[in-house]
Amino acid sequence: MVTKEGEKNKEISKNHENEVIIDFLSHSDMKIIQRNDYLNFSIDSVLISNFLTINKGRKNIMDLGTGNGVIPMLLSKRTNANIVGIEIQDISVDLACRNIILNKLESQVKIVKGDIKNIQLEFTDQSFDAVITNPPFFKFVGDKSQLNDLDQLTYARHEVLINLEDIIKAGSYLLKFRGNFTMVHRADRLIDILELMKKYKIEPKKIRFCHTTKNKAAKIILIEGMKGAESGLVIQPPLYINNNDGSYTEEILKMFGKV
Amino acid sequence: MVTKEGEKNKEISKNHENEVIIDFLSHSDMKIIQRNDYLNFSIDSVLISNFLTINKGRKNIMDLGTGNGVIPMLLSKRTNANIVGIEIQDISVDLACRNIILNKLESQVKIVKGDIKNIQLEFTDQSFDAVITNPPFFKFVGDKSQLNDLDQLTYARHEVLINLEDIIKAGSYLLKFRGNFTMVHRADRLIDILELMKKYKIEPKKIRFCHTTKNKAAKIILIEGMKGAESGLVIQPPLYINNNDGSYTEEILKMFGKV
Repeated sequence: MVTKEGEKNKEISKNHENEVIIDFLSHSDMKIIQRNDYLNFSIDSVLISNFLTINKGRKNIMDLGTGNGVIPMLLSKRTNANIVGIEIQDISVDLACRNIILNKLESQVKIVKGDIKNIQLEFTDQSFDAVITNPPFFKFVGDKSQLNDLDQLTYARHEVLINLEDIIKAGSYLLKFRGNFTMVHRADRLIDILELMKKYKIEPKKIRFCHTTKNKAAKIILIEGMKGAESGLVIQPPLYINNNDGSYTEEILKMFGKV
Repeated sequence: MVTKEGEKNKEISKNHENEVIIDFLSHSDMKIIQRNDYLNFSIDSVLISNFLTINKGRKNIMDLGTGNGVIPMLLSKRTNANIVGIEIQDISVDLACRNIILNKLESQVKIVKGDIKNIQLEFTDQSFDAVITNPPFFKFVGDKSQLNDLDQLTYARHEVLINLEDIIKAGSYLLKFRGNFTMVHRADRLIDILELMKKYKIEPKKIRFCHTTKNKAAKIILIEGMKGAESGLVIQPPLYINNNDGSYTEEILKMFGKV
């Protein structure tokens, strides 16, 4: 039986090749439009959305380079704050807008097409309480099996001339004093990340390294800093993605609502 | 029965109040003179001595602030390189010299009394292949139960006017091109450590964070850099010190030769 809801969802995704609508999180009715039918959406977006410090005082959150809008969608489960996602790629802006509609988040989430490098054309400085980002150049280097659909979807963005410094500079511009900057990146970029956060007056406050399995080097870093804050860094307990048999760890399954 | 060896060891430590000679590592005949009879020698020295990259080409190793000589003693089990320990405190120099004699390491280890801040008075630049250090200001902040005898022994050194920058500057001075700088420190000093290593041309190459237990923030950082090297940092799998029941983890017990 095709439900009315099902008909509507089909409508949202029609005439878009390689797309499929999937149930996103087991503990919610959230759905996401992806480019194929492989259930392997961006785990780094899930990690960073869970890592962000939620604070009732934070009323406006910006997602820099929102892609298909996955981070605003995930954050909507954790906060009632207004969320803006900025994205430069037409195909991603289109996907993000349809994902927001599909999940009835229009009143909370706004998708803006724009260039992060010219952020001042779209937003005034110090207008956000928190900035979150999963930068477009992120990928699991050397382990193709960890690459996922969203990475494939955003390959085009790897050619966009935006770098880590552009992202952090834009984040600092947007943040109010004591606002949070929260980012997922490759762990081997630690030194650059810390240097650039310092340069743009964002004091690193917490870091969590993510390892694919227990005996592997860290692949991913989750980092959060606070604009204009005093120093004081905590290295949180590590996060393991997979058990030795390749299955997801309990902590990861919890994030996906599977346990 | 008091053996001849026992008599000799007693001789080495006589007229020194609060001292005791203990068996140091279970898998060797190594002994160490400590200041009381509590078997709780400096775990950070054990960690850093195990962390140092051993390389046959490294013929000269310097231990900055050697204290009672524990690091040279531990390294002597891993390498045949010549090891020098420099120490400013008379009481520690005396202890270190007696520990080296006690363990018959006089041909491999040399203890020098001197001020790290005036290292150029004792050694020429670029004269060492590796520099290792457990800086004197290191301690487990906020968790007194983790403080150990060696920390107590070295309380006086906390008043010596030497800081992280002095240590790293001296290390860089001593190192040959592509020599290793290996240090244990407090994890919350990560940012300062990275900045200062960069400042003195030591490129961070590997980091290991040590957590007391699985769900605790990192207390200790083990870090190794290479002078003049290209960038490329690996965050190794974390090291856990204790199981949840307070006992040492298997990895720690192995370092002490207990398993």
